[in-house]
Amino acid sequence: MSDFLSDYGALIAVVCALLAVVYGVLTTRSLLALSPGNEVMQRLSAAVQEGAQAYLRRQYTTIAIVGVILFIALIPLQDIYVAVGFAIGGLASAAAGFIGMNVSVRSNARVAEAARGGISPALAVAFRGGAVTGMLVVGLALLGTAGYYLILTELFDRDPKEAVYALVGLGFGGSLISVFARLGGGIFTKGADVGADIVGKIEAGIPEDDPRNPAVIADNVGDNVGDCAGMAADLFETYAVTAVAVMLLGVLTFQGEAVVLFPLVMGGVSIIASIIGAFFVRTSSGNVERALYQGTIVAGIISALLFIPVTSWMMDGLVPTEDGGALPSWTDIYFCALIGLAVTGALFVITDYYTSTRFAPVRSTAKASETGHATNIIQGLAQGLQATAAPAIVIVLAIWGAAEFAGVYGVAVAVMAQLSLCGLIVALDAFGPITDNAGGIAEMANMPEEVRNVTDPLDAVGNTTKAVTKGYAIGSAALAALVLFAAFKIELEEKGGVVVEFLLDDPFVLMGLLIGGMMVCLFAALSMEAVGRAGSAVVEEVRRQFREKPGIMDGTEQPEYGQCVDIVTRAAQREMIIPSLIPIVVTVIVGILSVEMLGGLLIGVIVVGLFFAVMMTSGGGAWDNAKKLIEDGEHGGKGSIAHQASVTGDTVGDPFKDTAGPAINPMIKVANIVALLIIPLIT
Amino acid sequence: MSDFLSDYGALIAVVCALLAVVYGVLTTRSLLALSPGNEVMQRLSAAVQEGAQAYLRRQYTTIAIVGVILFIALIPLQDIYVAVGFAIGGLASAAAGFIGMNVSVRSNARVAEAARGGISPALAVAFRGGAVTGMLVVGLALLGTAGYYLILTELFDRDPKEAVYALVGLGFGGSLISVFARLGGGIFTKGADVGADIVGKIEAGIPEDDPRNPAVIADNVGDNVGDCAGMAADLFETYAVTAVAVMLLGVLTFQGEAVVLFPLVMGGVSIIASIIGAFFVRTSSGNVERALYQGTIVAGIISALLFIPVTSWMMDGLVPTEDGGALPSWTDIYFCALIGLAVTGALFVITDYYTSTRFAPVRSTAKASETGHATNIIQGLAQGLQATAAPAIVIVLAIWGAAEFAGVYGVAVAVMAQLSLCGLIVALDAFGPITDNAGGIAEMANMPEEVRNVTDPLDAVGNTTKAVTKGYAIGSAALAALVLFAAFKIELEEKGGVVVEFLLDDPFVLMGLLIGGMMVCLFAALSMEAVGRAGSAVVEEVRRQFREKPGIMDGTEQPEYGQCVDIVTRAAQREMIIPSLIPIVVTVIVGILSVEMLGGLLIGVIVVGLFFAVMMTSGGGAWDNAKKLIEDGEHGGKGSIAHQASVTGDTVGDPFKDTAGPAINPMIKVANIVALLIIPLIT
Repeated sequence: MSDFLSDYGALIAVVCALLAVVYGVLTTRSLLALSPGNEVMQRLSAAVQEGAQAYLRRQYTTIAIVGVILFIALIPLQDIYVAVGFAIGGLASAAAGFIGMNVSVRSNARVAEAARGGISPALAVAFRGGAVTGMLVVGLALLGTAGYYLILTELFDRDPKEAVYALVGLGFGGSLISVFARLGGGIFTKGADVGADIVGKIEAGIPEDDPRNPAVIADNVGDNVGDCAGMAADLFETYAVTAVAVMLLGVLTFQGEAVVLFPLVMGGVSIIASIIGAFFVRTSSGNVERALYQGTIVAGIISALLFIPVTSWMMDGLVPTEDGGALPSWTDIYFCALIGLAVTGALFVITDYYTSTRFAPVRSTAKASETGHATNIIQGLAQGLQATAAPAIVIVLAIWGAAEFAGVYGVAVAVMAQLSLCGLIVALDAFGPITDNAGGIAEMANMPEEVRNVTDPLDAVGNTTKAVTKGYAIGSAALAALVLFAAFKIELEEKGGVVVEFLLDDPFVLMGLLIGGMMVCLFAALSMEAVGRAGSAVVEEVRRQFREKPGIMDGTEQPEYGQCVDIVTRAAQREMIIPSLIPIVVTVIVGILSVEMLGGLLIGVIVVGLFFAVMMTSGGGAWDNAKKLIEDGEHGGKGSIAHQASVTGDTVGDPFKDTAGPAINPMIKVANIVALLIIPLIT
Repeated sequence: MSDFLSDYGALIAVVCALLAVVYGVLTTRSLLALSPGNEVMQRLSAAVQEGAQAYLRRQYTTIAIVGVILFIALIPLQDIYVAVGFAIGGLASAAAGFIGMNVSVRSNARVAEAARGGISPALAVAFRGGAVTGMLVVGLALLGTAGYYLILTELFDRDPKEAVYALVGLGFGGSLISVFARLGGGIFTKGADVGADIVGKIEAGIPEDDPRNPAVIADNVGDNVGDCAGMAADLFETYAVTAVAVMLLGVLTFQGEAVVLFPLVMGGVSIIASIIGAFFVRTSSGNVERALYQGTIVAGIISALLFIPVTSWMMDGLVPTEDGGALPSWTDIYFCALIGLAVTGALFVITDYYTSTRFAPVRSTAKASETGHATNIIQGLAQGLQATAAPAIVIVLAIWGAAEFAGVYGVAVAVMAQLSLCGLIVALDAFGPITDNAGGIAEMANMPEEVRNVTDPLDAVGNTTKAVTKGYAIGSAALAALVLFAAFKIELEEKGGVVVEFLLDDPFVLMGLLIGGMMVCLFAALSMEAVGRAGSAVVEEVRRQFREKPGIMDGTEQPEYGQCVDIVTRAAQREMIIPSLIPIVVTVIVGILSVEMLGGLLIGVIVVGLFFAVMMTSGGGAWDNAKKLIEDGEHGGKGSIAHQASVTGDTVGDPFKDTAGPAINPMIKVANIVALLIIPLIT
């Protein structure tokens, strides 16, 4: 049995990955069979589709240019297998984002239509729309990883270690797409959102999603390219890079192929668990959060059970590559996997606590809005800072526990287990932008009040699940990056033939730590400024249209939606380049200067990045839901001073939680993967 | 000559320190001889004095309780000499803050009176008032350090190493006062400020410093206890801890007493340079910034020149404690000192760039205010994040350069040189709250418009110098903490008799790094929330007084100023305890759990702390001056939308730049000193 799983591990993973893809295709079919609503709704939905596709085409063209340069550079630096892996990773990530987004933009009108029947049918449609993206993300990531591994070992006769090394290229491809997609998409969506809100809500006094606002389509397009395509690319890379990092650390630490295939099989069986879990996301009572939690818990329990046979068969009797040290038993490894699942649960609950309207952090931020803009911002920032503490402790405990059971490899297994549920988590997240869009279409198409009364609470839950997914992604990113760092060090010593020690009292290591921290701050600063600039450009364009076409406001003239889409598209393309290059360029330069400084840099990026990313995503989520709470009538309700203050907080939170914060996650890993790839250059 | 300086080094330092104290006493006398203005002004000034003294008495009582517990704990943990050092450090720091603040509160009315004659005489009085604090800070710090060293070696026959170890206690005493004073003072001043602004400016529509506002005296008291006494305690500890850290690293690295006394003599001769530099702070043209820069440059050049003989005589022919490694020559050491002076200059220029009304960061934040509160906040946060990059690079380059010349000891010499100018820098900072208060008294006493036209521009310069001092303090804090960490590691190995390696890939080191980062975030979160709560309490009290005493607004009833002072006093006392204990308690617990985790924690606190502290202080300064720029008529001037937005930014910046941000500085060092002191517990 052990031999069977080891030999056919990659095949099992491929089959499970194909299952996910099949699930995605079937779900898409059943979704497209639903009514897309009346003609107005279809026209609006088509406008959003068109804008989103135009944006993604342009974004991928820009990335392709950078990608081709890196592809060519990788051939002499590494070899053709790594370069091809890089291309596969990039293309698969792009495909997951592209297809997922196309399904999302087609689901929006269908959710609005389904919302006529109440929360249950609307949730069913929205969740299935999101589940397509979720399953495609894990399906394509696992298919790419396991498939390329199979091809390399079976067709090109590479040994497992060489094959895993080529997969590092695949991870890099995914990371590159991810950092661009998160930044570009984030700048697009928040530039449009901030711009639309400032002129529309504040200056012209028209409600959100009013069709008279020339930026309204851009805003809705942004939800899809940022929250859907950007997030899909982010989780694709998180998943793929983690799997590759665990395989790499495994092959560097233990002998035999089973250890290489173990993370792929873990991922495979979890897909089955996720698909089963997805069927449990249903509600008859209208309690949406409970429905989502229910599905996640079911998937988690099934995964935990399936890990038992997988671990006992594949990880029994490990043989180290070098002698010395206690060997972990399969139960040790299994406990590490349980730790990973527990981390997922803990991060879920913590982020929910800090961003849900039910608990003190959001409530205190809403309360602080009563005394105005400034106290709302101070409280939101303080809550964001505070929200970093519990996740940090969870991660510290996870490292401790996993390292006690199985050293750094234990940490690797934990983070793989954590990410194995990725498909379901992405599904929970991707339903957010779909309902957000559905609400937009309902508003623009003048659908009855009841429809918004269904989409609004779904949207509020979406805000929390979006924050939860980000907390999950950044938590796993920190752990995955630590695994990459461990692999980097072992690989560096193997290739260089010397013992490398990164000592905290080495001035070069300290310098590296500071440079790593600086990269995070600079990256965040530039991306936030980019949102500000893009938003200002939108403001000016909308003001121009209102001025030159006075008929827009009374409905006698049509606004030019395309202009605003075009402005943010161009702004996002222009502004995403420099920040995206920071983790590549700085890492290469520092690596050439000093290996010790590079080691410090990698850890500096992880540590400082973790805190800024959690602060930004949790703080942003809290501001968003504090506004929702006030709009639901607390602290004076809509139109009150508190409401105005909460709109300010929400707007500040936008670039925090949707641009800078989540983009730090792939940025951390790009730096660590680049370090792995430039080892030939620096030894 | 070498022998003379080595033998009498401590004496030279004591004499120079006494010179500083004498300068302070003489300047105080000449200040008190000036006219304190008319009866109204004297009464207002007396009210501020009373409130400030009452606050400080209470704060020191609270600290004394914690101090006595720690004093008793230090005796069995270390020995009586360390415990006595701790007491001396605490008392000297408290004395510097107390006396300096008393001079400040007496200078305010005198500056307002002098302002009748124009900018030159007002600057002269304000700067001399600040110079008293500045010279007392360095004078008492150096007197305590060198004096206690002399007493221990001459009267108690301790050898130099034992004496230096007792001085670590002195540093700890200073740090403890500092973290409490920064936090308590910061919560007081910003609670009062935020509260007074919200009810006064926004709700009641009365101008700043209007005597009808019941919180106005509390606000003015806050300037003194926060910006003056708090800042003095901060710089006292920065100076004392740095001197002690350099002495300790010296005695652990090289043989002989000269190396122990070298930092004290550097500090001593720089006092002479600072006193001379102070005489160059004068203007006939009214260009205040130039006058201040002029004095600093003169002091820097004289220090650089005086360091030549000191270094060549004391640091020639160093003998290491252990064999191996290249020895630095005295010119190597001298270059390190020059690097330190260059760092001071660079941090000065960088912070000036990011916080002065003359340059792009503040201008762009002011511009962003045109589109409202949210864009002002986003731009300010982005600028704050960006402002961390250049200081980080300066620090990295300084570490590199100094380490190339003389290893970690070179870094130590650089930071001592950087801090040697501390007296003058504090003087530049302390004149800020004095002019701020002078403006307040002018407003409350209905003095002629011309007086405010003199105090306002002085106040704007004060905002920048305050930010510059904070940048200087945090930059030196990071370097000084690295020196402490190096000493910690050597000491740990000596006491424990084992080689300790803090490896970046050790899970415990990584856990420590994350815990260190978490401490910073939690510390900042709690202190910001404390300001919010104190501010809310003030708002409620002021609203109550307006409600119950309707005569206040038309001048027929007197507001109860004392109530507001009392509320923020109690709030500050209550709220400062928990955050202040974080760097002590967490460090001790982690140290007991694992030495490797402790090592990670110390560096984690430094790295993460540096970025948050710079972001907060620079961002806060930029918001403050963006408001000033708009109040001077740009972007619509007072009363415009941009102005309202900039008031929000300024209010958000308040707890950033005056509470959380600067308090991170002593917090970093408390953690590192506690680690040194608990070595007997953890080996």
